[in-house]
Amino acid sequence: MLIDKELQHIIDHKTKPLGSLGMLENIALQVGIIQETIHPIIQYPHIVVFAADHGIATTNLVNPYPQAVTAQMVLNFLNGGAAINVFTKQHRIELIVVDAGVNEDFDEDLYSNHFLNLKIDYGTNNYLNEHACSEEQVHTAIQHGKNVVNKIFEQECNTIGFGEMGISNTSSAALIMSAITGIDIEECVGRGTGLTDEQLLIKIETLKAVFAKHQLQFVGNKPILLLSKVGGFEIAMMVGAFIQAAKNKMVIVVDGFIATAALLVATTIDASVINNCIFAHSSNEKGHEKMLAFLQAKPLLNLGLRLGEGTGAALAIPIIQSAILMLQEMASFESANVSTTSS
Amino acid sequence: MLIDKELQHIIDHKTKPLGSLGMLENIALQVGIIQETIHPIIQYPHIVVFAADHGIATTNLVNPYPQAVTAQMVLNFLNGGAAINVFTKQHRIELIVVDAGVNEDFDEDLYSNHFLNLKIDYGTNNYLNEHACSEEQVHTAIQHGKNVVNKIFEQECNTIGFGEMGISNTSSAALIMSAITGIDIEECVGRGTGLTDEQLLIKIETLKAVFAKHQLQFVGNKPILLLSKVGGFEIAMMVGAFIQAAKNKMVIVVDGFIATAALLVATTIDASVINNCIFAHSSNEKGHEKMLAFLQAKPLLNLGLRLGEGTGAALAIPIIQSAILMLQEMASFESANVSTTSS
Repeated sequence: MLIDKELQHIIDHKTKPLGSLGMLENIALQVGIIQETIHPIIQYPHIVVFAADHGIATTNLVNPYPQAVTAQMVLNFLNGGAAINVFTKQHRIELIVVDAGVNEDFDEDLYSNHFLNLKIDYGTNNYLNEHACSEEQVHTAIQHGKNVVNKIFEQECNTIGFGEMGISNTSSAALIMSAITGIDIEECVGRGTGLTDEQLLIKIETLKAVFAKHQLQFVGNKPILLLSKVGGFEIAMMVGAFIQAAKNKMVIVVDGFIATAALLVATTIDASVINNCIFAHSSNEKGHEKMLAFLQAKPLLNLGLRLGEGTGAALAIPIIQSAILMLQEMASFESANVSTTSS
Repeated sequence: MLIDKELQHIIDHKTKPLGSLGMLENIALQVGIIQETIHPIIQYPHIVVFAADHGIATTNLVNPYPQAVTAQMVLNFLNGGAAINVFTKQHRIELIVVDAGVNEDFDEDLYSNHFLNLKIDYGTNNYLNEHACSEEQVHTAIQHGKNVVNKIFEQECNTIGFGEMGISNTSSAALIMSAITGIDIEECVGRGTGLTDEQLLIKIETLKAVFAKHQLQFVGNKPILLLSKVGGFEIAMMVGAFIQAAKNKMVIVVDGFIATAALLVATTIDASVINNCIFAHSSNEKGHEKMLAFLQAKPLLNLGLRLGEGTGAALAIPIIQSAILMLQEMASFESANVSTTSS
């Protein structure tokens, strides 16, 4: 019997009405198919948070928080005080923080067990005026992302989620989304960390200008060029991370707006990446729902989150574990002597 | 400062954009208000599954599974093979199974640490012909439900969810829903554990006849009479359990269609019960969404579950815990030296 048929048979014979565990049943099936076994497991789950700065942030045209908050939040991650620390600790998920290009240096020795310095540069250039970075830098970032995943994979991790921190990175994500999906940039731009109506209008006008200047309508299928024009180092690393995780047959837990934008880029390089993805949640950031619809993705949670950091992914991992435990531990109608049909 | 203002102030000063943890922030606030403290905790969470049989089930007009499955599933709970066992074990939630009126006896000594025999009778009468039970039995069941909660509360539990098992109990829940909300019975009836189109039509016609026979349009505000006409012993016990849990200032995690129907009844006795309720999920059972809308409830999860047993409540408890941990463990902007405004 083919693995998917066999898995479905097992799921259908657990002591519950057919289909009554809804999305948990789909997840159990998907993870079994990814791992090519009727005995899938979630092993040593990790969340990797990629952090980097964006040149556009120095203009304060698109962001209510100053650029310095990226580095401050990285320190908060390293010191255990952020939301992602709380949720990963709660669910015993390993947390790794990667400096992909923050405009500040961190003490590598102090945080060596959960910090990686893979800084490409001290933030990208301001894409209002020039390319965010070189294509070479994009290639390097993608390779770093792949290496990070491989390093974690070698430690027997088979389930991974990616988070991010980078003041202004919803702007980069919105530009990428518009370029790849063809959805009008205005529909892709949201309030990020909390813009007022007036600030939102300025963000939209600013990103319209960036879109036009870089002629992004022509680069949706040129991922390296797209990332060099308007990407961020954290986004480029996530692209590599997504691709490598799928290659390693890992279960990938997709977080919110920025992570999904990176996934969009990854799918233009390798469309099969999506088969390994479980979509953690639908973010409150405006464009995310449309992004998910474009990918035909059904997210597990809709809690009105819009924080990033991988928080949605962390909250979804226990639900994925529930699906797998259902498969592993639930009795079958036969083993429990439960009738399946009406007398 | 009032406790709600103080809690909101603390939540707003955690290292995250204002409101960016969405429903988790609402839950942290609600639990703090319930517990009357800015340091709320989730302590020794329990799920109690009330099981009972329904006379209507013997007709096979409303249920695809035979009545015997109630007892078979209770044994499955006691032996650890059901979905609710898997999820409560995963999240270290205590599981208590209560025989509220199953048409079978269980070995109390064998399962004494997580089983309570509070059997009112060997199932209700068939409400197609007569009242499901006496008003005295309803009173007894409600009192038993209160006692169960008090017993658990005395063990320092402060968070509780209620599940149920009872072949045909979606029918009882649909009748109760229609009587209390005034929503047409046809809109309240769903496929339960998996009726076909044809079977669903028979269920609807059957319950229309029951609704008319018992003149349920006149008893929506007479909870004891309503339960005696078309209730179930497990539903009546849940009513008492909801009321007592709220009296004890416990956090109540509301499961799916049948649990919410019991809550509807409880609110006709004590409207304030709802203040202690967190709605775990929106079930796939047809009437549940409208029931939640009637209660102006926003459920945490929407995973397409329709299993009962308290499974939705069990899956939601870690999310409630995340909200509380956010309050307990996250750094504030001040403590983490993170800037709050644009430079």
